Amino acid sequence: MDVTSAPAAAPTLGEASAPGRLAGPDEGIGAAELALAARNHGLPLEALRYDTTPPGLHYVLVHYDIPVVPAADAGEWRLGLGGLVRRPLRLGLAELRARPAVTHRVTLECAGNGRARLSPRPVSQPWLVEAVGTADWTGVPLAALLAEAGPADGAVEAVFTGADHGVERGTEQDYRRSLPLGHAADPARGVLVAYAMNGAPLPPQHGYPLRLVVPGWYGMASVKWLRDITVTGTPFTGFQQAVAYRYRQAPGEPGDPVDVIAPRALMVPPGFPDFMSRVRVVRPGPVPLTGRAWSGHGPVVRVRVSADGERTWRDAEVTADPGHPWAWSAWGASWTAAPGRHLLTVRATDATGRTQPLTAPWNRGGFGNNLVQRVEVLCVP
Amino acid sequence: MDVTSAPAAAPTLGEASAPGRLAGPDEGIGAAELALAARNHGLPLEALRYDTTPPGLHYVLVHYDIPVVPAADAGEWRLGLGGLVRRPLRLGLAELRARPAVTHRVTLECAGNGRARLSPRPVSQPWLVEAVGTADWTGVPLAALLAEAGPADGAVEAVFTGADHGVERGTEQDYRRSLPLGHAADPARGVLVAYAMNGAPLPPQHGYPLRLVVPGWYGMASVKWLRDITVTGTPFTGFQQAVAYRYRQAPGEPGDPVDVIAPRALMVPPGFPDFMSRVRVVRPGPVPLTGRAWSGHGPVVRVRVSADGERTWRDAEVTADPGHPWAWSAWGASWTAAPGRHLLTVRATDATGRTQPLTAPWNRGGFGNNLVQRVEVLCVP
Repeated sequence: MDVTSAPAAAPTLGEASAPGRLAGPDEGIGAAELALAARNHGLPLEALRYDTTPPGLHYVLVHYDIPVVPAADAGEWRLGLGGLVRRPLRLGLAELRARPAVTHRVTLECAGNGRARLSPRPVSQPWLVEAVGTADWTGVPLAALLAEAGPADGAVEAVFTGADHGVERGTEQDYRRSLPLGHAADPARGVLVAYAMNGAPLPPQHGYPLRLVVPGWYGMASVKWLRDITVTGTPFTGFQQAVAYRYRQAPGEPGDPVDVIAPRALMVPPGFPDFMSRVRVVRPGPVPLTGRAWSGHGPVVRVRVSADGERTWRDAEVTADPGHPWAWSAWGASWTAAPGRHLLTVRATDATGRTQPLTAPWNRGGFGNNLVQRVEVLCVP
Repeated sequence: MDVTSAPAAAPTLGEASAPGRLAGPDEGIGAAELALAARNHGLPLEALRYDTTPPGLHYVLVHYDIPVVPAADAGEWRLGLGGLVRRPLRLGLAELRARPAVTHRVTLECAGNGRARLSPRPVSQPWLVEAVGTADWTGVPLAALLAEAGPADGAVEAVFTGADHGVERGTEQDYRRSLPLGHAADPARGVLVAYAMNGAPLPPQHGYPLRLVVPGWYGMASVKWLRDITVTGTPFTGFQQAVAYRYRQAPGEPGDPVDVIAPRALMVPPGFPDFMSRVRVVRPGPVPLTGRAWSGHGPVVRVRVSADGERTWRDAEVTADPGHPWAWSAWGASWTAAPGRHLLTVRATDATGRTQPLTAPWNRGGFGNNLVQRVEVLCVP
């Protein structure tokens, strides 16, 4: 042994994290992005046919590990509601289930949906277009729990803490996000502390035993494995609020918060696919085109379809369901396919006039890229 | 219009498919591979903790689209069993459910698991190590159905056809695979026509309403959305049997069939992860290591763990469950972490003496790569 060698310096947490970066020109998806893509997953687009997404097909994005909560332990699970409140609460599942339950049909979408279609590509979970799903979420209105606890004077936000634990850009953390109290405590915003998805207990990857569901906002707000709600007198500046999930053009900027879901339409790719290229094959003749469209800003009022590479557009029929204001709407159109290669495009516009862009809106985190979906189709006699 | 221009030739199916190829040196995962990775998914490795994999966490590999079979239509679903049999059958779900049911706990793994760790990388679904899952499958023994139908003289194989339809390397096809009749009709091999997974109807992506489950073989044999079984007098030479799923070193070779699952051990990555790098962080002191191990050739009899980059190995404790011969076994070991970077490796050996390799076994399709799992861990004071 070389007694002159100094002991290695103890490593620091920061060594676990690589700095945020953009992929180089023509840089393919790397090992770390692939590791995320292999464990998280999107909605297979043919599953847009279902009004509510069957278990296992709804998109999943887990920052760290899925916490292990055996069914036997779920009975021990406690949700704390404290901080600037007059009557702090500490509730088990049975106590939550004993309260009046509501069910909301909500479309959730990952804020990073579309990231892998950006150039340059921010290196993170590499979604194409499929990070979406719709479920019937059942639970207790957050507004009712907050009313029960009674926010004290000076309360401005509610901070939600999940049981998932990890490190990100050198910061060790429990996953944590906040909502303005005016949003969290407003029954009309429909925020839920949910314990069921499509009528069954939450699957582990969707937050078992408890999660937040924030209708109309990207999924990062809907904290899973929810174990604490703290009402605060100052805005939350934790990692997921102030560092991640900001729209920025350059690294140093404070950026704007990522929150409401931008409009998007997706189609069920018609015909059948090639296994590897995913090119779609149809036969000549009428081809029904169907899909879903949604926006967190308001109802989708118009869906247009192009079958000629965006030279001409036709209106699809949109079927809104006023009973489910936070869920996607179905749309349908018909197309008569002729032999050859075709590019199908679908484009949604919501009631506020927001329309999907034809060129990708770029930002450094790769958030909110609601570029139109383009589907390559080969019509073969 | 230029009347001298010749009409474009009608496209052919072949244009939907790119030729099979190997990725170039340092070529990252491309758009088509990413499209597959975004819709198919592996088991998040922390879910190795469950004896049976909860819905939505079991690996999924779908060649084409998930066929749409509404619950109302499942009652109309018919499984044909014909060809070289004396009494052809045509059975609905109710008739299958009325027969004696058996439940087998089976570990299924994709034959392409490990493909993305090969160099050069065959371009296809880019699995790392996670394409596995274990479920309790309930259904009717295939052997019982074949006995009922009565194979005629000269019968040699049973060919299974699914409802999933697509094109692959220019060949339009329903997904179809065969088994030798001696395997299919042998009650001891445990092949099932399954209608339930973990006690519930099959999820759409796992074959609703009916699928084959072939214990001990890679997943390509377990045909989903099963609608026909045809007993034949000659070996099946369809695409998925004779073209895909062969071990080949060069494109022209006939290759050896991909069939029985090679041994593999996986560990629950210890500690907690960095979101992006997936590096694991642990604190100094005792760290329990746990995981699962399996082989289609026989029980796993030995699992060894290395915590020093494969210089030294220790035996883990393996807990076999004789009641579930086709399911993975749990293993456990303890490790005392000291500050620094560590490479953990786990390696399984089965009762036939087959051991996981320390260098990846390469073939052109990227099948059966059961290279040992390596987990990078940072121990931070």
